[in-house]
Amino acid sequence: MLLYGYFRSSAAYRVRIALNLKGLDYDNRFIHLQKNDQLSADYAAINPQKLVPALVDGGHVLTQSLAILEYLDETHPQPALLPADPLGRARVRAIAQAIACDIHPINNLRILRYLVKDLGVSEEKKDAWYRHWVETGLQAVESLLTTNPGTGRFCHGDDPGLADICLVPQIANARRFKCDLSACPTVERIGAECDKVPAFAAAAPGRQPDAE
Amino acid sequence: MLLYGYFRSSAAYRVRIALNLKGLDYDNRFIHLQKNDQLSADYAAINPQKLVPALVDGGHVLTQSLAILEYLDETHPQPALLPADPLGRARVRAIAQAIACDIHPINNLRILRYLVKDLGVSEEKKDAWYRHWVETGLQAVESLLTTNPGTGRFCHGDDPGLADICLVPQIANARRFKCDLSACPTVERIGAECDKVPAFAAAAPGRQPDAE
Repeated sequence: MLLYGYFRSSAAYRVRIALNLKGLDYDNRFIHLQKNDQLSADYAAINPQKLVPALVDGGHVLTQSLAILEYLDETHPQPALLPADPLGRARVRAIAQAIACDIHPINNLRILRYLVKDLGVSEEKKDAWYRHWVETGLQAVESLLTTNPGTGRFCHGDDPGLADICLVPQIANARRFKCDLSACPTVERIGAECDKVPAFAAAAPGRQPDAE
Repeated sequence: MLLYGYFRSSAAYRVRIALNLKGLDYDNRFIHLQKNDQLSADYAAINPQKLVPALVDGGHVLTQSLAILEYLDETHPQPALLPADPLGRARVRAIAQAIACDIHPINNLRILRYLVKDLGVSEEKKDAWYRHWVETGLQAVESLLTTNPGTGRFCHGDDPGLADICLVPQIANARRFKCDLSACPTVERIGAECDKVPAFAAAAPGRQPDAE
């Protein structure tokens, strides 16, 4: 498989973790988001949405990180990223989407650029925007974790899965932007558990060949 | 089943379409987002994330619209919202997420409120923000539809599914905010096809009991 990614892309980070958990080898193509490589005609021919990641498997291009994670789980079922029961699957997907839909897209590079360039927002207020959505978003995730007995060593039970795969890159972003996670002890505890898992550690931005 | 929703919530609209397609009866509880009903302690006890929709099935609370749609498809498989093959499923999910992750969250009520109240953005620039993300987002969806032979009468093949369920509420929002969809003829064609399907038509905001 071939992964089009970028060391700092949270969405690519998710796919790297999943590939590692599944023990799947892959080659990298690096799309430098700060240099706008994703807007090139060459890359648009691969992913018309002009976002990373894109995963090529047997000549087929897959896009959108959550769709890629589900695809990997369907085509390489072990270890499972989702529980077997529909209610458990719905819970894990809901936690994943609370991050992938309700936090991450609001703080994407293109959004931050629009705030500064089109709306004239100061760097200080842009950073406050970033921290606001990460902090309120992760507090909501914290409440999903603390109000449900399904939470274990990881977000759901004692094995890492889809929700943890989304959580860890969001925690990494939170740390990079110095967000206050003091109201999120369960989020931090699970993040520390994930850090101990080699599949997560090897996927970290700082360990990628294109890291700066 | 019991659906906590709001007539204008795109995410609740998605769940209404899916329940109708599956032929599932449900009762409504209306959470008035403009009046901040979603922030009440009573509702937070149901959905700690304080967002709609929430679906109660057999005493279990499900949240996040895409997770609810997958749950309904797993527990009530006919008619299927996803194709049977992993590549097709990945494609449909990617189109759905291109809307549910990359367009909708950026234009959510709480985001628009932050722009105006915290960043002092004018109504005019707020509306331009809204149109920008809808127009560029739906143009990306258009490109996903036109560059793939899987597109049929609907987003994937000739039966409505998960991607169409996400597309229709986004088109409704685009029309309400007078977005320019002239670059999205396939999106508009599929939207018109969906309008002919009673399950979609009955789920429209204007047909809900809480519509204003």
